[in-house]
Amino acid sequence: MSRLLVRGIGELVTNDPQPGRAGGPLGIVKDASVLVVDGRIAWVDDAGDSASDGEDEIDVVDAGGHAVIPGFVDSHTHLVFGGDRSAEFEARMSGTAYTAGGIRSTVAATRAASDDELRTRLANFVAELYAQGTTTFEIKTGYGLTVADEARLARLAREVTDEVTFLGAHVVPTEYAQGGPLGEAGPDAYVDLVVGDMLDACEPYARWIDAFCERGAFTPAQSRRVLEAGIAAGLGVRVHGNQLGPGEGVALAVELDAASVDHCTYLSDADVSALAASRTVATLLPGVEFSTRQPYPDARRLLDAGATVALASDCNPGSSFTSSLPFCIAVAVRDMGMTPAEAVWAATAGGAAALRRGDVGVLRPGARADLVLLDAPSYVHLAYRPGVPLVERVWKDGAAV
Amino acid sequence: MSRLLVRGIGELVTNDPQPGRAGGPLGIVKDASVLVVDGRIAWVDDAGDSASDGEDEIDVVDAGGHAVIPGFVDSHTHLVFGGDRSAEFEARMSGTAYTAGGIRSTVAATRAASDDELRTRLANFVAELYAQGTTTFEIKTGYGLTVADEARLARLAREVTDEVTFLGAHVVPTEYAQGGPLGEAGPDAYVDLVVGDMLDACEPYARWIDAFCERGAFTPAQSRRVLEAGIAAGLGVRVHGNQLGPGEGVALAVELDAASVDHCTYLSDADVSALAASRTVATLLPGVEFSTRQPYPDARRLLDAGATVALASDCNPGSSFTSSLPFCIAVAVRDMGMTPAEAVWAATAGGAAALRRGDVGVLRPGARADLVLLDAPSYVHLAYRPGVPLVERVWKDGAAV
Ligand SMILES: [Zn+2]
Ligand SMILES: [Zn+2]
Repeated sequence: MSRLLVRGIGELVTNDPQPGRAGGPLGIVKDASVLVVDGRIAWVDDAGDSASDGEDEIDVVDAGGHAVIPGFVDSHTHLVFGGDRSAEFEARMSGTAYTAGGIRSTVAATRAASDDELRTRLANFVAELYAQGTTTFEIKTGYGLTVADEARLARLAREVTDEVTFLGAHVVPTEYAQGGPLGEAGPDAYVDLVVGDMLDACEPYARWIDAFCERGAFTPAQSRRVLEAGIAAGLGVRVHGNQLGPGEGVALAVELDAASVDHCTYLSDADVSALAASRTVATLLPGVEFSTRQPYPDARRLLDAGATVALASDCNPGSSFTSSLPFCIAVAVRDMGMTPAEAVWAATAGGAAALRRGDVGVLRPGARADLVLLDAPSYVHLAYRPGVPLVERVWKDGAAV
Repeated sequence: MSRLLVRGIGELVTNDPQPGRAGGPLGIVKDASVLVVDGRIAWVDDAGDSASDGEDEIDVVDAGGHAVIPGFVDSHTHLVFGGDRSAEFEARMSGTAYTAGGIRSTVAATRAASDDELRTRLANFVAELYAQGTTTFEIKTGYGLTVADEARLARLAREVTDEVTFLGAHVVPTEYAQGGPLGEAGPDAYVDLVVGDMLDACEPYARWIDAFCERGAFTPAQSRRVLEAGIAAGLGVRVHGNQLGPGEGVALAVELDAASVDHCTYLSDADVSALAASRTVATLLPGVEFSTRQPYPDARRLLDAGATVALASDCNPGSSFTSSLPFCIAVAVRDMGMTPAEAVWAATAGGAAALRRGDVGVLRPGARADLVLLDAPSYVHLAYRPGVPLVERVWKDGAAV
């Protein structure tokens, strides 16, 4: 029986509000201790370290008065890919022309990469996530866009996380594009493939189905076909929607009881009301607007309406190559009308809600012991000290990473 | 004779443009090696590692194709202080009232802190700076505001850097404020103290004099008195100016041949022209606008006019508690019209220019061997991957830190 006691925690964010705890939804305990047994939280205490008396075989860590929060839950990433798009980024930010970029350039590079190349990069990203306090993360396919390549990406993603999303409907690949050999019929023929052989090949590795419902990607009707096929195959639903302009993504997501609809930058009043009345989480991705110089989504409007908001990185080489949830928190506070408390909740418990997980993003008895010790006295410092690496130690399932 | 060879550098930013090098002012060498002898750059080479042949007693590091840049030069910090203002930050960002804050609350906490308390915090900040690739940094006084406390802060700052700035003219302390016991005469009486006993007590530790020339701080006439007294005492000039509105700070700085005028958020056309025609650097501090939700300074306008632009952190507990120059670079690219190349130059060579240093911020024979190895193939990633800790290894004067 492995046991870990973290004591001397100046401020513990539990995301488990109880009478006597501060910080509203954050459920803050001051001068706390946490006992972990076999990778799960055994108890959270504000009465010092009494429970360690007489116990042997216990690993004791003193937090030195620093803050401890639940590990971040990043519910939206695209981390299995090949190639590099830093030149495209530099050109965009320098106002110079660049023609070789876009998602399709990553698709070509990903198809050309070997399993081992992709696996090595993925391992580096996973280490990077842990080092920044992210202990649960979703990964999408979507840079393969053939049956074999999508299945390969799903399989590689599944090697590092249970939260794998099949996103064959990321973009219509060149060979099916409207200007391509199949003409007008191309995109629908691609959707036929996605809901047929491609879904069959990916479903064994995936927990989720996703579609990019946006002008230039997939129509609402095409997106519905993809998502309903996923549901029929036993997958949960996520949607990319309302990123670049108003659209039907949010309405479709709510109708299908999606766990999350992601981006939500352009919302109608009806979208906001629908989200507030649903259990679909609005997942906001500030790294995208930061890295593309687009207007930020209005988190305040969603929160004031009563919707559940999550923050995620959308880590991908094109529109948001950050993997830092502390960075997303800082931007959400600066530019999206969130308080530091709301932003930290959104990147932990909010991400868990967006993945419909009750065992992460919260520190209560029985939950996974995914803990982040900050080099700071308070969770507030995640917004107060933007860019500064404040993650001091990380435990995943009670084990140091 | 200590020798270090860093080879296998995929992209070396020298800030030393030469025929055959790319990247304009960045002076980029691909597939480079750098030889360090006794803490100084001996040579920069694109011909592999030939010079290591037959040498013993040499420490060889393979950069694995990653990028190396000069250490960041942070020309503007306020790192000697006591107390905590995270509650004030949280209140500001949450739209709730908070009355106990402001510079004067940090002054009170700093006066109350012991030398050892301040020294411990300072040591933590210095470690944090190094870990983020900052190898040269300026520190200002300004939270003491008595002769003894300002001298104490200057002395403590001098223990960790040669670049100490006497900023007695940071804010008029409570005991001299207009509403205080001295009435209308208070602020000028405080300036008398600053240019008299306080300057005498701080000058032995300081290289620079600075004044906060802004409505609510010091008038142009008061600022001029302070700066001219500093010049007479042999100090170089820096100015805080044009942060909160148009003002005479920039004009005064240029007239006095200041090394730098910092903030520059509100500039007239005449200010921009004056800067462009001078050798005074415009130091922009994006952390301030980020953390106070103010509009950003327009770096593009300054660059297009031909002014020299530096980026610095302004790290302080009130308006900008970041110490991350990578973060400042990312924000400057996103929101201030800088290209990634301009922003990286501004945080290295630009900071060196703002401190009138020719031995840092550049990698050429004879310069200090202050090197940052990035966990990335290009300097572009500092903007492309916001918030991600990309600093892999750091050398200061050729020694690993
Ligand atoms: Zn995405
Ligand atoms: Zn300052």
